[in-house]
Amino acid sequence: MKVRVCWIKDIVVAVTGENMEAMKGIIQRYQHKRISLVEAGVTRHRSIFNGLKALAEDQPNSRLSKPEVVIIHDAVRPFVEEDVLFQVVTAAKEYGASGAIRPLVSTVISPSTEGCLDYSLERARHRASEMPQAFLFDVIYEAYRQCSDHDLEFGTECLHLALKYCHIKAKLVEGSPDLWKVTYKRDLYAAESIIKERISQQICVVMDTKEDEEHVGHRLEEMLKNELNHMKKVTSGKDLQQILLEQCYSFVCVNVMTSDFEETHKLLNMLEESNLSILYPVVVISVHFLDYKSVPFGQTMENLMPIREFAKEVKKRNILLYGLLIYYPQDEQKLKESLRQGATIIAALIKERNSGLTGQLLIA
Amino acid sequence: MKVRVCWIKDIVVAVTGENMEAMKGIIQRYQHKRISLVEAGVTRHRSIFNGLKALAEDQPNSRLSKPEVVIIHDAVRPFVEEDVLFQVVTAAKEYGASGAIRPLVSTVISPSTEGCLDYSLERARHRASEMPQAFLFDVIYEAYRQCSDHDLEFGTECLHLALKYCHIKAKLVEGSPDLWKVTYKRDLYAAESIIKERISQQICVVMDTKEDEEHVGHRLEEMLKNELNHMKKVTSGKDLQQILLEQCYSFVCVNVMTSDFEETHKLLNMLEESNLSILYPVVVISVHFLDYKSVPFGQTMENLMPIREFAKEVKKRNILLYGLLIYYPQDEQKLKESLRQGATIIAALIKERNSGLTGQLLIA
Repeated sequence: MKVRVCWIKDIVVAVTGENMEAMKGIIQRYQHKRISLVEAGVTRHRSIFNGLKALAEDQPNSRLSKPEVVIIHDAVRPFVEEDVLFQVVTAAKEYGASGAIRPLVSTVISPSTEGCLDYSLERARHRASEMPQAFLFDVIYEAYRQCSDHDLEFGTECLHLALKYCHIKAKLVEGSPDLWKVTYKRDLYAAESIIKERISQQICVVMDTKEDEEHVGHRLEEMLKNELNHMKKVTSGKDLQQILLEQCYSFVCVNVMTSDFEETHKLLNMLEESNLSILYPVVVISVHFLDYKSVPFGQTMENLMPIREFAKEVKKRNILLYGLLIYYPQDEQKLKESLRQGATIIAALIKERNSGLTGQLLIA
Repeated sequence: MKVRVCWIKDIVVAVTGENMEAMKGIIQRYQHKRISLVEAGVTRHRSIFNGLKALAEDQPNSRLSKPEVVIIHDAVRPFVEEDVLFQVVTAAKEYGASGAIRPLVSTVISPSTEGCLDYSLERARHRASEMPQAFLFDVIYEAYRQCSDHDLEFGTECLHLALKYCHIKAKLVEGSPDLWKVTYKRDLYAAESIIKERISQQICVVMDTKEDEEHVGHRLEEMLKNELNHMKKVTSGKDLQQILLEQCYSFVCVNVMTSDFEETHKLLNMLEESNLSILYPVVVISVHFLDYKSVPFGQTMENLMPIREFAKEVKKRNILLYGLLIYYPQDEQKLKESLRQGATIIAALIKERNSGLTGQLLIA
């Protein structure tokens, strides 16, 4: 998100009247400091023009000041990387205008008025114009001031306005596939999966012992590393404050030494204080071990039932808590099998972040 | 999939040499009868030409015969509907050629040799050319026979060949968003979600009693209907053979009268015989009720543990079996709450089809 890029000074968002209050609520909730809102126009170009006017010096009562360079972006392209923003800004300083492009996925054709093929374009010679685009502010503001009502009503391309009214040939920058526009329902599915994948990259394992390397909790951590190393980073929770700062959204909390939820409680308290879960759901898996010899199965299950209430409580704060009971047999081969199944269940819970299954006690 | 459309006589698939054996295996596994394979060319047009040659009458030893109309489609557009296939075929009979189009999502531009903007196209006057396309066989075969090596190497558009070499102006047909090309990783995510959504539309509830309408199983069925009616169809499993024919992929099996898995076993046997799970995973949720008064909790849990072994067994056949134990209190309000939570868990399991959690016993 653009608010993460520290060198962007102000962010102006065009919002329709009916969504204005909701947007103000979002800004307050997430404590965004750099965002100003302007009223959206009835077309894309009119909205952008309203945003530019808010940045121009000649507007009275504005807390904003005119920038050297302005980036224009679409809210429907949420996965823009800092790198491409930097590239278009650098190119805009040199060329006056710049925009991200992508190869065409389909051939582009022009239909006749009868709905038949008139001509088709050579795919290799054309590109899709994407966002972000960047401009010297004076260039794009001048272009919008001069452009016709027809442009404002029917136009779709800012680079075109800079070319037509200021004779600026924009520098084109190759963008990544993640710049795509979230347009259809399938795009929402894709966006959800991409976010889930990103916040599941790092798993932090918190343990209630620091000493014994032979400890079954360490063996579980090793198993997680082996099973998941092709995609995930498994971190020991030795410096939890640091890990929270790194925005880790997946925690495995191993309770071996104590038969209750002591370690899990400590972690949940820290998470609640950190506000980490305000943006994305945080998964916490409370792991316990079942030693048939000492405590009977039914008894262990009953001891762990309070997790249902804890889960209900923290779910209000967007924390998804699950329990995992790992069978701990004497037989080395069987223990390995239990740990491997535990790792599979942990991976599945972290990947899906299914809020319907919180408070469940799963068994490996 | 095209094999589901009964009026398509033959299907010719172009496959690269290295994938030929794998493809033969797939055809055999899914018992496809109408598919012939040809060797793919190094470019799109060469692959299509190879397919057309296989259909042309002048090929010796071919079991295929020349059709009146041929449809050309991409394997990367798996969600094509029968309706659009029918439309392009009908239009091809009248116009000689026809293809599906979609509105452009981004403006199309042409870059100069220096990587700057040369010109941009008016978005409203252009369309993305998608697949399927249909042609009178003689038209498209003639176009491929006459076209240049340059066309075969660098061209991307079959409609263009029909226009250039046979002077046929293809009729353009508006396609649905689902015709999109599965191109990037995000498209695989989207495709997976679309398939999961489609096979989760219908839920069949199988019950071990037919009589008592006050029965808690019927109440669960009602709750499912209320909770899910905005998206899902809940069917009673009264005529299971018919439901299997309708390709229902989600089953809730309620065991009330018996304390074991009798009803679930019957259903699993039918599913294994039906071969339904060969294409997509089938979810089966075995529901049991926990009456604290009669049997203690730990005892009930232990009685239900064999589900882990059953689940391991049927998973080999692509059947995902989960257990659900619903708490059955005397208090009406609490019972309602249990049933509602049961419905939430059922919905979550069916939606996610998570193979890592099979054999688990969830508690509502």
